Amino acid sequence: MSTAEHGKSTSGITMRDVAKAAGVSVATVSHVVNNKPGARIGDDARRRVQETVTELGYRPNALAKTLSEGTSRFIGLVADAIATTPFAGQIIHGAQDEAWKHGYVLLVANTDGNTAAEDEAIAMMLEHQVRGILYSTWYHREIVVPEALHQTDSVLVDCFADGSGLPAVVPDEEQGGRTATEELLAAGHRRIAFINTTTPSPAQSGRLAGYRSALELAGITFDESLVFAAAPEQEGGYAAAPRIIDSTATAVFCHNDRVAMGLYDGLREQGLRIPDDIAVIGFDNQDVIAAHLRPPLSTVALPHYELGAAGVRLLLGLDPATATDPLKVACPLIQRQSI
Amino acid sequence: MSTAEHGKSTSGITMRDVAKAAGVSVATVSHVVNNKPGARIGDDARRRVQETVTELGYRPNALAKTLSEGTSRFIGLVADAIATTPFAGQIIHGAQDEAWKHGYVLLVANTDGNTAAEDEAIAMMLEHQVRGILYSTWYHREIVVPEALHQTDSVLVDCFADGSGLPAVVPDEEQGGRTATEELLAAGHRRIAFINTTTPSPAQSGRLAGYRSALELAGITFDESLVFAAAPEQEGGYAAAPRIIDSTATAVFCHNDRVAMGLYDGLREQGLRIPDDIAVIGFDNQDVIAAHLRPPLSTVALPHYELGAAGVRLLLGLDPATATDPLKVACPLIQRQSI
Repeated sequence: MSTAEHGKSTSGITMRDVAKAAGVSVATVSHVVNNKPGARIGDDARRRVQETVTELGYRPNALAKTLSEGTSRFIGLVADAIATTPFAGQIIHGAQDEAWKHGYVLLVANTDGNTAAEDEAIAMMLEHQVRGILYSTWYHREIVVPEALHQTDSVLVDCFADGSGLPAVVPDEEQGGRTATEELLAAGHRRIAFINTTTPSPAQSGRLAGYRSALELAGITFDESLVFAAAPEQEGGYAAAPRIIDSTATAVFCHNDRVAMGLYDGLREQGLRIPDDIAVIGFDNQDVIAAHLRPPLSTVALPHYELGAAGVRLLLGLDPATATDPLKVACPLIQRQSI
Repeated sequence: MSTAEHGKSTSGITMRDVAKAAGVSVATVSHVVNNKPGARIGDDARRRVQETVTELGYRPNALAKTLSEGTSRFIGLVADAIATTPFAGQIIHGAQDEAWKHGYVLLVANTDGNTAAEDEAIAMMLEHQVRGILYSTWYHREIVVPEALHQTDSVLVDCFADGSGLPAVVPDEEQGGRTATEELLAAGHRRIAFINTTTPSPAQSGRLAGYRSALELAGITFDESLVFAAAPEQEGGYAAAPRIIDSTATAVFCHNDRVAMGLYDGLREQGLRIPDDIAVIGFDNQDVIAAHLRPPLSTVALPHYELGAAGVRLLLGLDPATATDPLKVACPLIQRQSI
């Protein structure tokens, strides 16, 4: 492969064409186009090259540029399922917007949690000399870090690995649980049930801790009999309805919006009206559900977009990473009509 | 940039290392690794190089390889919102699986329908010498093709542009509407209402055509008073409930699952039970909704995964493209408990 080929752009105009039209050497064009530090080029020649580049529509070959610079303008995003579950796609959205803002393009690989596919995706990204890799999961959890992630700058998004040394950004589950409970307290409720998930996770422990701390701050003694375990979906919420009614709670904090949707059905079957007879708040602000229940569901949003954007900022060193703990992103309150 | 740099792999082992260990020239290694056609290399030398590559863990630099071959192992996917709406992410999933199967990596850019972002994404993909571009929308519609798509092989996925000359792959809306209606007919219903969307689209006209053709095949005269227009979401379905009850229909085909979800609420409020008093079928098989309604909703699935996979096959010439009409992918029946 010759140097001439490197100068060939995708528009068909070569670096040689630019050099000829601008009356400078190919090396000068290359230095200006690639913005090489240390190259001594007069202001005149630089301006002439830049004008000619615009005039002829010369577009430097991105791959050749990557080879000469050693890293590309790619940021990799390895995701277990966020692009294909109806849930965490906004992580991609936020990461992409933030990457583009800083001149990077997001390279997305969806692995469905398959280890072989994951290894292959990371290897592909390393081969393409990515600036770094975001490794993301579709729900917040602790992970075992794939060894290859240590071969470049990597940031964990919506997941974490204690002791891995990798920076991480996760939703603030405890604050979210506190916010949800405080919203019910603010409406005057004192006997508040919590339908938690049966699945051990940072969401399970964090939202419970938030629920407890909000009660404590309000001077209400924690009552374990008001905490119910249910499968984290509609069926779990529906099945919990009789227990909620028996508990004489006047308000319910649901682990997620799907549970709240099932609970709506269960309460309705027993003739209870929301929010007149019982108030309900969810968690997630899940698209196609939360805003469309009857009545529309008040909830706390998972900040997926912001997680993706914050991950890119951590990777590029624009936000300082904390050495040990993951960076926590707040879960905002979304007020609707169920309280 | 020297030839030596091109031989440098991401694992730190160079082509020169492989040549030395195998006792052949660097050119021979390059020819074997890059699988150059026409290069005359003895079977012995070829085997020695391949064994040494494995032994030393040499990994060719993907970008250098791309430069020498003229196209990369990337396939671009430009999407308006499919990665970030809770709906069509399976298009990415299908495209990615199919791309990987043939040794390609999917480069995904989500543009939110922003024309500037779209132009930039396509330019970026062209600069990276993609094998071709899939251009996809999150719901089936006619589009105006961005000019730059003609600079490479492009395929439209879940959208089409008559007269553009670009191959396209779309869901078979008419067959889907026919299948849904036939399922209600098979359960003995003769008076079947159809809640169609208020939004003009291939889904609106196609599903109606399918509904009509199924009735016709069953010898039932089409009755315009049984077709209702509603906003294509829960609120539309809920609002349609009184009209459905007035129509004395015994079964309802809903334009989509969200409409069916709202209709469930509306019918329930009037004391009707599904399917005992009235049967319901949806469309889309939307995740987090269809399977989790009470009773679980029978529906017709949008074949998003298959659309993505078929798009890649069209692009790579593995499936023949029809010259004029889009390739139609069947929408399969999903049987649950609402009929």
